[in-house]
Amino acid sequence: MDTLINDLLNIVGKTGVLLGDDIALRSVDWFTKAPCEAKAIIRPQSTEQLSQVMAKCHAAKQPVVTHGGLTGIVHGAVASPNELVVSLELMNQIEAIDAIGSTMQVQAGVTLQRVQEAAQEIDMQFALDLGARGSCTIGGNIATNAGGIRVIRYGMMRQQVLGLEVVLSDGTVVSSMNTMLKNNAGYDLKQMFIGSEGTLGIVTRAVLRLHPNMPSEQTALVAVPSFDALTSLLKLASKDLANSLSAFEALWNNHYALMTSATTKHTPLLATDSPFYAIIETLGSDEKQEAEAFARVLEKALEAGLITDAVLANSSTQRQGIWDVREDIETLVHELNPMFSYDISLPITHMNEYVTALEGKLNAQWPETGTMVVFGHLGDGNLHIMITVRDASPHSRREVEELVYGSLVKYNGSISAEHGVGLEKRDYLALSRSPEEIALMKRMKLALDPKNLLNPGKILA
Amino acid sequence: MDTLINDLLNIVGKTGVLLGDDIALRSVDWFTKAPCEAKAIIRPQSTEQLSQVMAKCHAAKQPVVTHGGLTGIVHGAVASPNELVVSLELMNQIEAIDAIGSTMQVQAGVTLQRVQEAAQEIDMQFALDLGARGSCTIGGNIATNAGGIRVIRYGMMRQQVLGLEVVLSDGTVVSSMNTMLKNNAGYDLKQMFIGSEGTLGIVTRAVLRLHPNMPSEQTALVAVPSFDALTSLLKLASKDLANSLSAFEALWNNHYALMTSATTKHTPLLATDSPFYAIIETLGSDEKQEAEAFARVLEKALEAGLITDAVLANSSTQRQGIWDVREDIETLVHELNPMFSYDISLPITHMNEYVTALEGKLNAQWPETGTMVVFGHLGDGNLHIMITVRDASPHSRREVEELVYGSLVKYNGSISAEHGVGLEKRDYLALSRSPEEIALMKRMKLALDPKNLLNPGKILA
Repeated sequence: MDTLINDLLNIVGKTGVLLGDDIALRSVDWFTKAPCEAKAIIRPQSTEQLSQVMAKCHAAKQPVVTHGGLTGIVHGAVASPNELVVSLELMNQIEAIDAIGSTMQVQAGVTLQRVQEAAQEIDMQFALDLGARGSCTIGGNIATNAGGIRVIRYGMMRQQVLGLEVVLSDGTVVSSMNTMLKNNAGYDLKQMFIGSEGTLGIVTRAVLRLHPNMPSEQTALVAVPSFDALTSLLKLASKDLANSLSAFEALWNNHYALMTSATTKHTPLLATDSPFYAIIETLGSDEKQEAEAFARVLEKALEAGLITDAVLANSSTQRQGIWDVREDIETLVHELNPMFSYDISLPITHMNEYVTALEGKLNAQWPETGTMVVFGHLGDGNLHIMITVRDASPHSRREVEELVYGSLVKYNGSISAEHGVGLEKRDYLALSRSPEEIALMKRMKLALDPKNLLNPGKILA
Repeated sequence: MDTLINDLLNIVGKTGVLLGDDIALRSVDWFTKAPCEAKAIIRPQSTEQLSQVMAKCHAAKQPVVTHGGLTGIVHGAVASPNELVVSLELMNQIEAIDAIGSTMQVQAGVTLQRVQEAAQEIDMQFALDLGARGSCTIGGNIATNAGGIRVIRYGMMRQQVLGLEVVLSDGTVVSSMNTMLKNNAGYDLKQMFIGSEGTLGIVTRAVLRLHPNMPSEQTALVAVPSFDALTSLLKLASKDLANSLSAFEALWNNHYALMTSATTKHTPLLATDSPFYAIIETLGSDEKQEAEAFARVLEKALEAGLITDAVLANSSTQRQGIWDVREDIETLVHELNPMFSYDISLPITHMNEYVTALEGKLNAQWPETGTMVVFGHLGDGNLHIMITVRDASPHSRREVEELVYGSLVKYNGSISAEHGVGLEKRDYLALSRSPEEIALMKRMKLALDPKNLLNPGKILA
């Protein structure tokens, strides 16, 4: 065994080190299930242990890849045989809850779902929500600045974090566990680490912001006759449901029709010939009031011709049925095999033009095999685009990437709305960021991780 | 004239340079009206001009202090005779408004109030609000991460900024004018500059997030019998008005009684013998619904003994009357002359203990002259404390500072909730931040401004 591993074994103990077959047993890619190739997986049980681990790695110039719940899809967790993995899986405690201050203090390895449940237990809510909730961890949510379905109301993960503890590449522990909504005593250091994908520091603990519980949930699936009607509907809902609108998801016809086709497990709740669909959701505290306001908006939209049909969920089963169509990625993976997945953002006004042009180019280049589906968080300017050309070769992948990302440039769009960059989008970063921005990112990286040990090669080449 | 000034004159033209008497005419301190002492005030008219100015200053190792609306109160705008001031006052345009994307693109020198009004004109709102709205600028709001009265609903300035353009100390322009709610394409660079008080870069333009307009505004002033009742009232309002609660301001008896005493211009709307008062405000889209919900909460609070009396504003004049007592700082300055002003945050659960202990110590040390008033944004954990000992000597000031800040340490409180650090609180930074945090701040400063030219000596020694 190499000396470093032996040193680390002395720090974290036997249960803290995985070697050999145990490494390849875990996959680093949710889509491809590619096995982990790291030389070892180190599992510290405390910040102090991790600090010592990083001090040793720093001295040995050992690069490290941090693992959370492994639900990321931009290859941010890929580790090569010369790299060590640090997994936060044994640091998964909820340490404290303050109902008056509306905060929760947790270790980074706790899952999103456990945090959500712990908040519910004291009649509050943790506002971040996304499909991978059962597996993804708070540390991963912070490292990637996770988004999800309620950003329009509560913001991304960045807005849910009040305090942070990180271990720097040399083992220094920076504890910045602020619990207050307001704290302007110097630079807000946590902001640098949120969304930096493990390249600037390793998140070990956090203070999370809780929100009041919202017992009243209204959900509808509506059919929308045009893209203009879709943006007008968003405007109407944003205005008339301003305080309570918590999700506004758009589904292009190609998504809804595929997801509810005969070969899938979903039955269509609405006819499948509408150009667009939307899932609208509100969260509130007063069931009667919320239901009335919600129904009024749907009526208004129907009268104005912004929607042509609607299903209003009147049970949690129906609500789940509506969301299942949106959240079921497995069916997409199966139907669009082999599938390329994209997560972009651009100004809402340009979305339809962008999507139509992209579809045109895809069909021109792959007239037989090109298929795409589009859905996403319209209110956030965020679209998910899934494409297959029935060929997973690197060459085809690159050609599709160039179509998807290349067409974004003229709209000042982003190659990554919420998934991050990782390895997958690294080569396209310059399409969304200027040379000055990338130079500044590199300056930050150099200042914080001068030996380039933390998730090296991710985000920045 | 020195060569550098001459070079800068060639860049910004004659109207762009203020010299001699024009410099001392403007004060750098809202409280003391102390005159500016800089060697010149440079007023660029474009980002390009500022970029050239900074390139020259960088070559000449010329330190620079950035000025916005000069409403800050931590001496962040103080400039010594060897420093140049860069004022953004001529860069005050609103460049674009996107009603569908809900964004506004502005130059840094525009006032907060003009941004608020421009948003209203398209039936939207800009959510940051604070007393200095007519003078403070968006650039200053960004540089200080301004807070104000609606943080509980909309967050601080940080949450209102989608994109940013900054000029670095060497003149490099970093344009990161993102317009989307979600953009995870690499590090979110703007976060570093927000709240850095002009020490890392000069903000020149921004993309601001707009929110739907909220035509229905409910405001009440209530009398609260105890601190426990105050936190229970906050909890009740946060829960039952979860979506619409936009302000929850607490006034200690010492504040309310002083502000409505015979020598001031305010008449008390409620008897002045209650231990605490609160101003509660909601913003919503449906007047009838909001008014009903608001009245229900006040009834509930009255029944539960959380409040003993209430005035509900039924006109904008009454609403203004309630807010005037809270926002009238001039009267405080007059009544508590010479006044020391503090802006701290700490966990809500410890607030009463902290304030009581502080008042005890103040009265013990200055039995004849010590007077303090307390008010602030309870929901944010943020208190403003105004103190006089009828003596403005540096010695007395320091003794009072030590009382106020020293007592915060055991609660992990912050010496600055929303005003920033500037020069005024610099020596106390270590009370709110660990050596590791301060070391990391210095590392950031060194990485971004290696010659220490931008607002040198502010925040960090």
